[in-house]
Amino acid sequence: MDTGLAFTKGHGTRNDFVLLDDPDGILDLDAATVVALADRRGGIGGDGVIRVVRTRAAGIDAPADAPEWFMDYRNADGSLAEMCGNGVRVFAAHLRAAGHVDTDAFEIWTRAGLRTVDILARPRQDGADWTVRVGMGAPALAENGRRLSIDGHELIAYDVDMGNPHAVAFLPEGVHLDQLDLTRRPGIAPDPEGGTNMEFVQQRGDHHVAMRVFERGVGETDSCGTGVAAVAVAAAHRAADGSGRPWTVEVPGGTLQVARRGEEVILTGPARLVADGVFRG
Amino acid sequence: MDTGLAFTKGHGTRNDFVLLDDPDGILDLDAATVVALADRRGGIGGDGVIRVVRTRAAGIDAPADAPEWFMDYRNADGSLAEMCGNGVRVFAAHLRAAGHVDTDAFEIWTRAGLRTVDILARPRQDGADWTVRVGMGAPALAENGRRLSIDGHELIAYDVDMGNPHAVAFLPEGVHLDQLDLTRRPGIAPDPEGGTNMEFVQQRGDHHVAMRVFERGVGETDSCGTGVAAVAVAAAHRAADGSGRPWTVEVPGGTLQVARRGEEVILTGPARLVADGVFRG
Repeated sequence: MDTGLAFTKGHGTRNDFVLLDDPDGILDLDAATVVALADRRGGIGGDGVIRVVRTRAAGIDAPADAPEWFMDYRNADGSLAEMCGNGVRVFAAHLRAAGHVDTDAFEIWTRAGLRTVDILARPRQDGADWTVRVGMGAPALAENGRRLSIDGHELIAYDVDMGNPHAVAFLPEGVHLDQLDLTRRPGIAPDPEGGTNMEFVQQRGDHHVAMRVFERGVGETDSCGTGVAAVAVAAAHRAADGSGRPWTVEVPGGTLQVARRGEEVILTGPARLVADGVFRG
Repeated sequence: MDTGLAFTKGHGTRNDFVLLDDPDGILDLDAATVVALADRRGGIGGDGVIRVVRTRAAGIDAPADAPEWFMDYRNADGSLAEMCGNGVRVFAAHLRAAGHVDTDAFEIWTRAGLRTVDILARPRQDGADWTVRVGMGAPALAENGRRLSIDGHELIAYDVDMGNPHAVAFLPEGVHLDQLDLTRRPGIAPDPEGGTNMEFVQQRGDHHVAMRVFERGVGETDSCGTGVAAVAVAAAHRAADGSGRPWTVEVPGGTLQVARRGEEVILTGPARLVADGVFRG
């Protein structure tokens, strides 16, 4: 019998991941294994698979002074991805829980470069959340006159680049976020080459919005970390808010906070480590 | 910290289950825990949860001579269910793998009564299937003139009771099984009180059919054990087949065989034990 593959399952605002602890880079993680692990019925199930590996053992090009731990993120289809805004919190919680790091403030390496992490709260018991803050890099916002159309409404969207593209549209009064039909892809014009994620936002109060997201190539999801950051950036821009006060962003999967630290967007949200096990495929 | 809940994840033709090994009935498994375990993003994920418990320790009414092991099946919403035709194979494989039974032919107890099990093949390595044969009880077939309507076609259906109700319709030539729109519930008239599962069937060859199923209260699924049995019963009836030769039934999740043993339908199919772990919620 094979010995199986040790895994941890975790999620952040219901974006869920299978983590493989591979500190010394001995796993030969091929696309087929990623697909098998991420398969919700035939495997463990997740939006992605994260190999937890030392940067110098990861088989990647990284600067000599890169942080010790590398988030080797794979999409559920086995392809490589640069970063995942919810996955990085789960990755950070695992590093701390596994004893790979021994402080609450540390840096990690990703395919999108360096990210800073702060563990703000650690659960006192099973079935509770970690709270993790992660630097998401600098955003780029543009008003390109892009329009989203949904349920007969035409909405002007902000283009926000968070390493990946987002089109962020605010709903007018009387249009209810909960009632939007996101079972199919909303209309977009002009449609950017390579597509874009789309966010629909409703103001909930002072520095407080709620959103739903239609992820590029996926469909509606319960949460998207870069989308949450993009929405807060657009909301602050729209409100001409230079206060630096954090924004609260509700997604179907939970609630997050977004603040600025200089040019960088920092995202704070929950992470939960749900299970540990051995996958035998 | 809590100690967590040991689990096994398995599937049969992509009907998947979280199994909890509880031989002495010490788990107090409430609906909320079942829902948390079955949650595909926040938990482990499964179509159902199966507690593996000795009949005498299960806290149920059962005959004094009932088999030693009880399949305590719960739906993903936490409610009790009588039986699950795919789950019972996974349950049986687990009993054998865990050493709870030491023969390949045994009986188990379910809320639908006694079931006989034969382990026909055991995997020689991880990532491979068990082959398990299970008695599914006696069917009842009726021609009640029920009609299913899908994609503009009106189809006469057989009513087959396998402990739960099925309406089984055969597709005419030129209508392709793969092209049916099962994203919404097909029409049915008359609609039986309490609803029914619906199966759409295409003849593939001699004693060989393919099917898709729309499960009552769920929607289309990759497989349904009682549905597979019901389809074979209807196919044999339609073909005036009294040969007793087994029927091969393809579902989206795999391939199964259905035979008769006197009045009883016996279903043979794969079961796979995918992972073991500890759930911390």
